[in-house]
Order: sequence, then structure tokens, then C-alpha cells
Amino acid sequence: MRRIKITLAYDGTGFHGWQVQPGLPTIQGTLENVLAEIEGAPVAVEGSGRTDAGVHALAQVASFSLQNPIPAENLKRAMNRLLPRSIRVLSVDDTVPDGFHARFQARAKTYEYRLSRDAVCSPFDRLYVYHYPYPLQEEAMIEAAGLYCGEHDFSAFAAADEKDALGHSKVRSIYRSSLAREPGRLVYTVRGSGFLKHMVRMMMGALIEVGKGNLDQSGLRERLQPGFDGKAGPSVPANGLFLVSVEYGGEVTEK
Amino acid sequence: MRRIKITLAYDGTGFHGWQVQPGLPTIQGTLENVLAEIEGAPVAVEGSGRTDAGVHALAQVASFSLQNPIPAENLKRAMNRLLPRSIRVLSVDDTVPDGFHARFQARAKTYEYRLSRDAVCSPFDRLYVYHYPYPLQEEAMIEAAGLYCGEHDFSAFAAADEKDALGHSKVRSIYRSSLAREPGRLVYTVRGSGFLKHMVRMMMGALIEVGKGNLDQSGLRERLQPGFDGKAGPSVPANGLFLVSVEYGGEVTEK
Repeated sequence: MRRIKITLAYDGTGFHGWQVQPGLPTIQGTLENVLAEIEGAPVAVEGSGRTDAGVHALAQVASFSLQNPIPAENLKRAMNRLLPRSIRVLSVDDTVPDGFHARFQARAKTYEYRLSRDAVCSPFDRLYVYHYPYPLQEEAMIEAAGLYCGEHDFSAFAAADEKDALGHSKVRSIYRSSLAREPGRLVYTVRGSGFLKHMVRMMMGALIEVGKGNLDQSGLRERLQPGFDGKAGPSVPANGLFLVSVEYGGEVTEK
Repeated sequence: MRRIKITLAYDGTGFHGWQVQPGLPTIQGTLENVLAEIEGAPVAVEGSGRTDAGVHALAQVASFSLQNPIPAENLKRAMNRLLPRSIRVLSVDDTVPDGFHARFQARAKTYEYRLSRDAVCSPFDRLYVYHYPYPLQEEAMIEAAGLYCGEHDFSAFAAADEKDALGHSKVRSIYRSSLAREPGRLVYTVRGSGFLKHMVRMMMGALIEVGKGNLDQSGLRERLQPGFDGKAGPSVPANGLFLVSVEYGGEVTEK
């Protein structure tokens, strides 16, 4: 069996997230169907991680094994011919080691969250931003974004069902956390060792609480303490969230 | 009755074009439903022109009359609250003269056609470009685009049903016609006195024929002659086309 790594982009709008769910369109399910057609047998696809319903990806990474000897470039073309246009394979790498696994070997991931600050949200952006035209203390948010950097216990920033999974560490390292003003929007970029379910959306939700004046820097710091008992803040909608990249191999450092 | 001019943007993907069609979602129909709700009585909306199914608008203009004394800014907000997010009212002007009519008084319109030249089309662009990754002599297309400038008989560039409407002049003035390279795409911009049904898509289709080497400059010139008997070339898909702006009043000149 050949071991294969693919990088793919998708518009999450029409999908019920990454993970296979019977009877519902998902990214993983769609990829597995297409690969089964090419292979003539079932193919199990592993992603670097799940993305929730409505979350987009600029460069998600997945891995699988194939008997079919089809050259990498032809496999990319065949997959793109069979996939809906909302999912595109950007590259296929069949030179990865036999043991390559998209999830277990991911060293760092980068996410982006896009917040539209326009009074009227462009119809062409509506599926790709969270439209929040209300007053925000943007400077306070930009300052607070940096507080996430470093190693913290993100228990307060995990979905309820993930929080119940006792015994699993909720400690994650954040290598970069910055909020930037772009024309008509705020863009939050976060790069870290890994992310809990809903974590980026709750981190962004807490930043919005800072912007509204409901939370200050010390309040945000408290929520990053191991003992913090509660939820860090409301989650923001999925459609503003993009998985930007997944890194493998070597030393992962601040960049 | 107050006379009102609105400017609006829309993502044409989910609509069967501008014009009301019973039982089908259209831009005009959606606007009329929302205005009827605000007015408490039927409201007839006139657009600067029809856009076909799947065609987008960055700044379409429409006009209507209203009894309701609601201030312009509140009308804009009320409409945007009731409209789907795929249609946005960008501005409302209630200071236009009583006789203002979005179609009859339009002096010039600008359209843009977006052709993706990337090998793999981004999932986020797929509804807003025509993906054409095949070889094209782009320089020849850029040169040929200028031939449309000036006053010509565009009979060969009109949809079949429009061509049958004898007695209506098919002469139009083109003030600007230029094809530009942008990263990963070709963007065609055309500004003119008015456009026949399918005209921009057939103009772009003929430019692609030039790019493929099927048509040269003299062949394109022939198709702009009054006596030309035939179709200028295949039409390109609707989803790459954007109505960019509509101009009113004053002298319309080359710019």
C-alpha cells in the first residue's frame, strides 16, 4: 500500500463539518466516496483534525493508503474531476513515509477568524465572515489577543462535550496570537500546537467580550488558569473560521 | 408618492435573474415582496436593466415609488433586515426628481467579467469566476478587446430572442473595453451606453475565440459590421459576470 498526503481547500458552507455522518454531506465522507471510486475499494481518510459544520479550509491536510499506482499528479486531477467544486485538492504527495498520519504527526496549526466591521456586509462575503457592525474597543482587543501566547490550560475554551472528557490534557501551546485591522474587517490569526473543539471560536468570542468592555485583561488571564471554573465566553459563528495551514516535521518554533 | 432610487449589490447564484418569474426567486421579485411588506401595498420596482440568472451585481440601481414617509436611512435598514443576506441595499436616495426611472435614464453601464486562469480554481471563487485553465494567447485577447470601443452594430452579439425583435436598433456605444491580467485571472471591463441581452458574455466569448486562435482581429471586426449574418461566438457562463455600476445624468464621456 502507498501512503499519501493531500492538501485541500474547501468551502465549508454546504457541509456538516469534516467528520463522516451517515446520510449527511461531510468533507471526509465526500473524499472517501471519491477515493473509493478511484481505488475500487473502501479508503479510510484521516484529517489533521475535524472542522465543524460551516468552517472553511485554505489548506487542510489528510492522509490515506492506496493500492492504485496512479501517479500523484493524475490522482490530484482525478480527485478534482470527481469532487464537487467546493472541495479542491491543491497537492498530492506520495513520497511521505509509510507511517505518515495527518493527525498524529501534525506539529502546529494556524487558524484565521474574519470579523466584518462594515455597516453593510457584502453579499459576496456573507458566508466567509462574521458580520459584527456594532461598537468594539478594537485597541483593547488587539492588546488582549497577545495574552493567549504561551502554554495555557484551555479547559474554559473547549466545547462542553470535550470538557467532559476527563483525563485528557487541555493544555495547549500558542505560538502566535494576533488581531489585525484590514479594510472593513478585523482578522484574528492564531498558530498553536493544537486546538480543542470550538477553541478558536471561544478565544475569538472572549476577545469580542473584551471589545464590548465586558471583560478586561485580568479577566481573560483568569480564564487561562488551570483552576478556572466556567466557560470563557460565547462562541462565535463557524462561518468566519478558516483552517489556514497544518505543519509537520522538525522543530516547531515561534515565527 | 415619493420617488426613490436605491443602489444594491447581490450574489446572483441563488436567483433566476433580475426579472419577476412566478414561483421562482428573482432579485426584482424579492425586492417587491420586501417593499410591499414595508408599504403595506404592492410596489413596482424598475431596475436599470435585467441581469440573467447567476449574474452578480456590485452596484445595480433600481427605482420605485412609496407612500410611506420612512426616512431614507431607515428604509435602507428596514430593507436589509427583511432581505436575504445575498441582496444588500447599499444606499437609498429619496432626493431624485419625480420622473426618475432607473432604466430610461441610465446613461452608461459598466460590467466586469472574471476569468480564472489558475490550474485549480479556489472553492471560494467558484461561483464568481469562469474557470478556464486551458492555453490562451492572452496578448492577442488584450489587443482585440480594444476593437469593441466606439459605436457598432452589436446584432451578432445579442441573444437569439433579442435578435428576432426587428425594428429595434442594435447599435451601442462602447466607451471602454479592456482586458487586464490580475494574479491568477483575466478581468474584462466594459463600459457602454447600453447592452443587449447576453452581449457582454458573447463579447467575452469572442475574445476567448481570439485567445484560442479561432478568430483574428479582422474576423472580430467583421462581426461588428451591420451586415454580418451570424452569431459572433459562444456565450460564456453567467457566474463570471458582474454589473459594476450604472451612471445617470450629465454628459457621458470616455473615461
